[in-house]
Amino acid sequence: MNSIRIPRERDNDYGRAAIKARQEFIRDQTDSPAEHVTHYSLDPCTLPGNVENFFGVAQVPIGLAGPVLVNGEHAQGEFFVPLATTEGTLVASYSRGMKLCREAGGITTTVLDDKMQRAPVFSFNNAREAKAFSEWLDANFEPIAAAAQTTTSSGKLIGIQKFPVSKLLYTRFNYTTGDAAGQNMTGKATFAACAWIKQNYPGELHFLLEGQFATDKKTSVVNMLHTRGKRVVAEITLPATLVEEQMHVSTDKLYAARMRGQLGSIMSVTNNNGNHSANGLTAMFIATGQDVANIAESSALYGFSELLPNGDFYASITIPALIIATYGGGTGLATQRECLDILGCYGAGKVYKLAEIMAATVLAGELSLGSAVVAEEWVQAHDDLGRNRP
Amino acid sequence: MNSIRIPRERDNDYGRAAIKARQEFIRDQTDSPAEHVTHYSLDPCTLPGNVENFFGVAQVPIGLAGPVLVNGEHAQGEFFVPLATTEGTLVASYSRGMKLCREAGGITTTVLDDKMQRAPVFSFNNAREAKAFSEWLDANFEPIAAAAQTTTSSGKLIGIQKFPVSKLLYTRFNYTTGDAAGQNMTGKATFAACAWIKQNYPGELHFLLEGQFATDKKTSVVNMLHTRGKRVVAEITLPATLVEEQMHVSTDKLYAARMRGQLGSIMSVTNNNGNHSANGLTAMFIATGQDVANIAESSALYGFSELLPNGDFYASITIPALIIATYGGGTGLATQRECLDILGCYGAGKVYKLAEIMAATVLAGELSLGSAVVAEEWVQAHDDLGRNRP
Amino acid sequence: MNSIRIPRERDNDYGRAAIKARQEFIRDQTDSPAEHVTHYSLDPCTLPGNVENFFGVAQVPIGLAGPVLVNGEHAQGEFFVPLATTEGTLVASYSRGMKLCREAGGITTTVLDDKMQRAPVFSFNNAREAKAFSEWLDANFEPIAAAAQTTTSSGKLIGIQKFPVSKLLYTRFNYTTGDAAGQNMTGKATFAACAWIKQNYPGELHFLLEGQFATDKKTSVVNMLHTRGKRVVAEITLPATLVEEQMHVSTDKLYAARMRGQLGSIMSVTNNNGNHSANGLTAMFIATGQDVANIAESSALYGFSELLPNGDFYASITIPALIIATYGGGTGLATQRECLDILGCYGAGKVYKLAEIMAATVLAGELSLGSAVVAEEWVQAHDDLGRNRP
Amino acid sequence: MNSIRIPRERDNDYGRAAIKARQEFIRDQTDSPAEHVTHYSLDPCTLPGNVENFFGVAQVPIGLAGPVLVNGEHAQGEFFVPLATTEGTLVASYSRGMKLCREAGGITTTVLDDKMQRAPVFSFNNAREAKAFSEWLDANFEPIAAAAQTTTSSGKLIGIQKFPVSKLLYTRFNYTTGDAAGQNMTGKATFAACAWIKQNYPGELHFLLEGQFATDKKTSVVNMLHTRGKRVVAEITLPATLVEEQMHVSTDKLYAARMRGQLGSIMSVTNNNGNHSANGLTAMFIATGQDVANIAESSALYGFSELLPNGDFYASITIPALIIATYGGGTGLATQRECLDILGCYGAGKVYKLAEIMAATVLAGELSLGSAVVAEEWVQAHDDLGRNRP
Repeated sequence: MNSIRIPRERDNDYGRAAIKARQEFIRDQTDSPAEHVTHYSLDPCTLPGNVENFFGVAQVPIGLAGPVLVNGEHAQGEFFVPLATTEGTLVASYSRGMKLCREAGGITTTVLDDKMQRAPVFSFNNAREAKAFSEWLDANFEPIAAAAQTTTSSGKLIGIQKFPVSKLLYTRFNYTTGDAAGQNMTGKATFAACAWIKQNYPGELHFLLEGQFATDKKTSVVNMLHTRGKRVVAEITLPATLVEEQMHVSTDKLYAARMRGQLGSIMSVTNNNGNHSANGLTAMFIATGQDVANIAESSALYGFSELLPNGDFYASITIPALIIATYGGGTGLATQRECLDILGCYGAGKVYKLAEIMAATVLAGELSLGSAVVAEEWVQAHDDLGRNRP
Repeated sequence: MNSIRIPRERDNDYGRAAIKARQEFIRDQTDSPAEHVTHYSLDPCTLPGNVENFFGVAQVPIGLAGPVLVNGEHAQGEFFVPLATTEGTLVASYSRGMKLCREAGGITTTVLDDKMQRAPVFSFNNAREAKAFSEWLDANFEPIAAAAQTTTSSGKLIGIQKFPVSKLLYTRFNYTTGDAAGQNMTGKATFAACAWIKQNYPGELHFLLEGQFATDKKTSVVNMLHTRGKRVVAEITLPATLVEEQMHVSTDKLYAARMRGQLGSIMSVTNNNGNHSANGLTAMFIATGQDVANIAESSALYGFSELLPNGDFYASITIPALIIATYGGGTGLATQRECLDILGCYGAGKVYKLAEIMAATVLAGELSLGSAVVAEEWVQAHDDLGRNRP
Repeated sequence: MNSIRIPRERDNDYGRAAIKARQEFIRDQTDSPAEHVTHYSLDPCTLPGNVENFFGVAQVPIGLAGPVLVNGEHAQGEFFVPLATTEGTLVASYSRGMKLCREAGGITTTVLDDKMQRAPVFSFNNAREAKAFSEWLDANFEPIAAAAQTTTSSGKLIGIQKFPVSKLLYTRFNYTTGDAAGQNMTGKATFAACAWIKQNYPGELHFLLEGQFATDKKTSVVNMLHTRGKRVVAEITLPATLVEEQMHVSTDKLYAARMRGQLGSIMSVTNNNGNHSANGLTAMFIATGQDVANIAESSALYGFSELLPNGDFYASITIPALIIATYGGGTGLATQRECLDILGCYGAGKVYKLAEIMAATVLAGELSLGSAVVAEEWVQAHDDLGRNRP
Repeated sequence: MNSIRIPRERDNDYGRAAIKARQEFIRDQTDSPAEHVTHYSLDPCTLPGNVENFFGVAQVPIGLAGPVLVNGEHAQGEFFVPLATTEGTLVASYSRGMKLCREAGGITTTVLDDKMQRAPVFSFNNAREAKAFSEWLDANFEPIAAAAQTTTSSGKLIGIQKFPVSKLLYTRFNYTTGDAAGQNMTGKATFAACAWIKQNYPGELHFLLEGQFATDKKTSVVNMLHTRGKRVVAEITLPATLVEEQMHVSTDKLYAARMRGQLGSIMSVTNNNGNHSANGLTAMFIATGQDVANIAESSALYGFSELLPNGDFYASITIPALIIATYGGGTGLATQRECLDILGCYGAGKVYKLAEIMAATVLAGELSLGSAVVAEEWVQAHDDLGRNRP
């Protein structure tokens, strides 16, 4: 079949000519005028490593929310949060939650864990061979880690989890990865480790670099239990009177609603017993140049709330697999870096700070929507702000 | 606490002055130069209903993949696919899969189901009252549907699923929603239905408009079983020689790898026994103005493959909760509409076509990455294209 | 290979000679004296249809718990509950919970739903064929139900659920089954229905009688959502002072513990956010001749509790897949029937009564263990009653 | 309320008089003649620690299956398997599978892991306190293990897993437990460890001995991933001709059916992608005096099969949470011990042997039912043997 091919240049595919050729190609071959998509200020020279066949940009509108007041170990003070979204009411709703939390003294945040995985699976002729290999793997952790280390200066193999089944051994190679998200780093390092294993293991084995135990771009229980990326908590205690005054709900109704929502989450079997963390996180991911596909995993959430004896409301969210970076990937692109700068989070040493601000933002959004559902204002709010939504 | 407040204007908050005031505010209050984010061609007057506190845009680079050859009921022929991403190799990898599938005669796609939900929970004094209400609900479906209908011309309530537990009745109000994604439409309609119920039910009841059984912005088993948005299949049979020639793997190795990946998915308990559907979908969602937070749900996937007796490889993916629109939401914004135009998918009557192209794109990407992992080219590919990734 | 074969008789394998031959065989071929196992009062003539190669019985000790006070729609009054178990403290613990509930006025029980399934999967050449069949299936429900009906007088096909994926259509044929558990009845009826389908469907299809969507002898979300067997609730409101007095815990501590347990259940991903329903149910299943393997499914449970404003404690459990019978299977055997008689539950028309007593028993056990964990008496209780446990 | 109370004796509640009083009580207070239940040969003096309020026994019929040929590390040779059940066809079906496997050279079994848990949850004022405690816990493992050790000579604390969330730290205290199942042993040891922790931790903390992360009597992903009890594999390669000859199915049809069943398991979200392991395990548990309620957990199963290039069929099952004992609990009771003797598995040093025989039995049963469903003989088999089942 003779398909028409997208124009490419071997030498300078990010140059003006190559890009222009693709833009013309789109205008010729499709019904798109390609007028706005071709309007951008970023320098295409910065794009190798981020995209192929570049022809333009999506202009995703950004609203400013906040400030959110964070009492973190890494993020401290008030932050204005850029949210890139096309969903009406989202910025307004998060801002409303941030105001509530600010008046309650701010949100306390804590990073609990940090690791990134690649998860090779090893195949054998039978379970007994797999068992023998499993023991060999433990005995040879040091040289395996050394082999992994040859590929990276910022990553470090901290352990190998093993999940034996049938004649297979599934593993999780756990790394720390500095300020990068680290999916590629861990891929290379684990490949080097597996190459060393294959060369040095006295028995026969086959491996696949990924046995779907990592589970990159897919939410999973194993990642929620054992952390992928950052595991971060945001928590706050809200005075009953403040909630009543600002959100027009009593804390006992808010709590009763939350308990019904939680049982619904259990029965429907979600990866998230909260309300809508994906909304705020996605908007921050797009704005700050994160790999947005990681929302599949990063939207997992454990909520835990308590109605205190005096009527005050303790609320917390734990994000078990927040996969983010402040360096590398899309973080250095033109608008993305500027949005990280709004948060004071661009570059080395900032990734925990970013994790804390994201967690605080999520908690603010949970409280805002959670209250709105109870106050039955929710439909109304979308009506007022969400014009033209069919 | 006296926080500095983000500038807003009551009358014309999307006007030049309001926007400029916020841009200045960012430059004053944060470390961001806000140079690139303030560079855009979209008309802010189009933004009410999509974002609040607008101050600029994220410029997300778009690469062109394809063409993908689709033998759908709604999408027929070759399509070039705009992918908005910052992840190196993604466009190249999807294009490679599309080429493979094109040479195998194209991807067959079928839309299996289409519905959108809102899921109120009703509370009673005890289980027996809940049971009585459940029967009343069945008996009164017609007037309830009529009440819902008063709020929308394009949506239609097609049924109410019931999940009783304790003294509660969780429900799912299922709607068809035309070319819109329909989350807001179903919210309003269900609110009207609940208002009618509350007014007409002879007993006492309390309801929450959302009992986390819908599960908006959260992946869930209930949505995977019962569909949220579009349920769409893409399938293809690949000749063994073609796979060997193009992907440098034998189909029996490809199949063995897939079976190991599937067991890994079962054990790690994912919502997706494939490889990385979130990658392609997220890039299409950003490009075409979808609500990207829905990736949390839309990235769920059922893969099913067979190694045929002659060595050929049957591959299919089913997306059970693809939440998309070709009208409303962010689809009409400047660049987003242009990207829909590239696909021939803007406006009324196009949503199944878009669903089919997305499903075909996902399948192409699954086959590309699936082969690469087996061919152990994966790390290498990221090395070549994924420059600078720490 | 010439294995020694277990003695069998073609004509009268449940006769004295055949049984004796097997008992001798055991004594000859193994180290077992087979003294106690061969001591029984049941009449082996009653065993065809329940077991093959019969040689003796397990003597499982039964303790009497209760009385449990039930305010059901079918079970009303006080019931003494036979529990067949070898786990020390179990009978004592359930009795303690029953006493608490009795003094609180008894447990209210409600049967919410009742169905049994067989779940054939239909295979086609592609998804579009599967879709066409799905529509045909809806259009032909009446004759399909009639075909199923030819095999049973007590069962009735009430609906077919459909779960399409790839080129396959998974279904659940839902039946009511009277006082029998109905797994075999639904198997036969569905086989007849499938035979009719195969004969009458104008296209090509293949089916398997079970596609693991039923999910017999396996717990599953689909069964928890949609009921398999009986869906039954037990609920009670316990005065704070009564709990304090009898269980030596305050209701707020009890509630705080329950919330921690529930979050643990969510994180560890159980099919049961309660404590130990399998204990009481298994003991009742063994005593009353249920198919004990169904504990795999019947031990699933949804717990829901509330701390009321006055400090009282509302507790409920919902068993979504309680698979039981009061007729057929093992219910008519010698001791099993006597235990059903203790409950007044043998024979036709008694299955909802039995479901209610079981649910009430489970709730009593939940409250007893739940309180004990809080009161830190748990280890102590096992120490006192659970002699000799290494 | 003045309930009638079950007769008890403080001094000699397992003596003839106390038992007789309860038997009379049943005859007086209920409709049960209590004739067969009161017929037993076990000595009630052996029952303290196994049951309270003893009044009689359930006579559960036992059939003899096999022999099953096992090539284990601990079980080697042919074993006759006592199955206590009331489900017709079960013994016949398992025997049929055992014959198939015997003629294929026997089933290879391997014990992969062995641990038992108790899972306290620790509560703090906020996440940062929980994080500090988590680090303290690691630093103090030695004295904590020593404290646990004071309560048991056969158990050993081998590690503590940590799952932080919100202001809580969920843990799993992992032990080896010798030939006992060990639930009580680990309860006592963990209580002692927690007491030491509470006394020595410099900060404030509260703990519950069980945070539902163990998850005793409840199936869970965490137990399937990380093992509870024994993790054991059974595997076999079946020649295509043998399968055809004995089971009347071709291996490619058997494999195709298995793949459809597996996808059904994924979609319905079971803890078991096989057929019916609960059947064989429950029957062995009842016969051999295991805690039958553990079937809730022990029925979890990972199946993995391959159709080999020559048409032969590799089949394996892995049971990740087989909770069994050959000593303590109900294993020493009259008939239970005799059944363990049939297997050569009573007493110290036999628990891995028993695990291997159970795994082999399960695999035989999987192959038998799996083939029958394909051969469409299933309904027929139940018809012939399952008399009188309504």
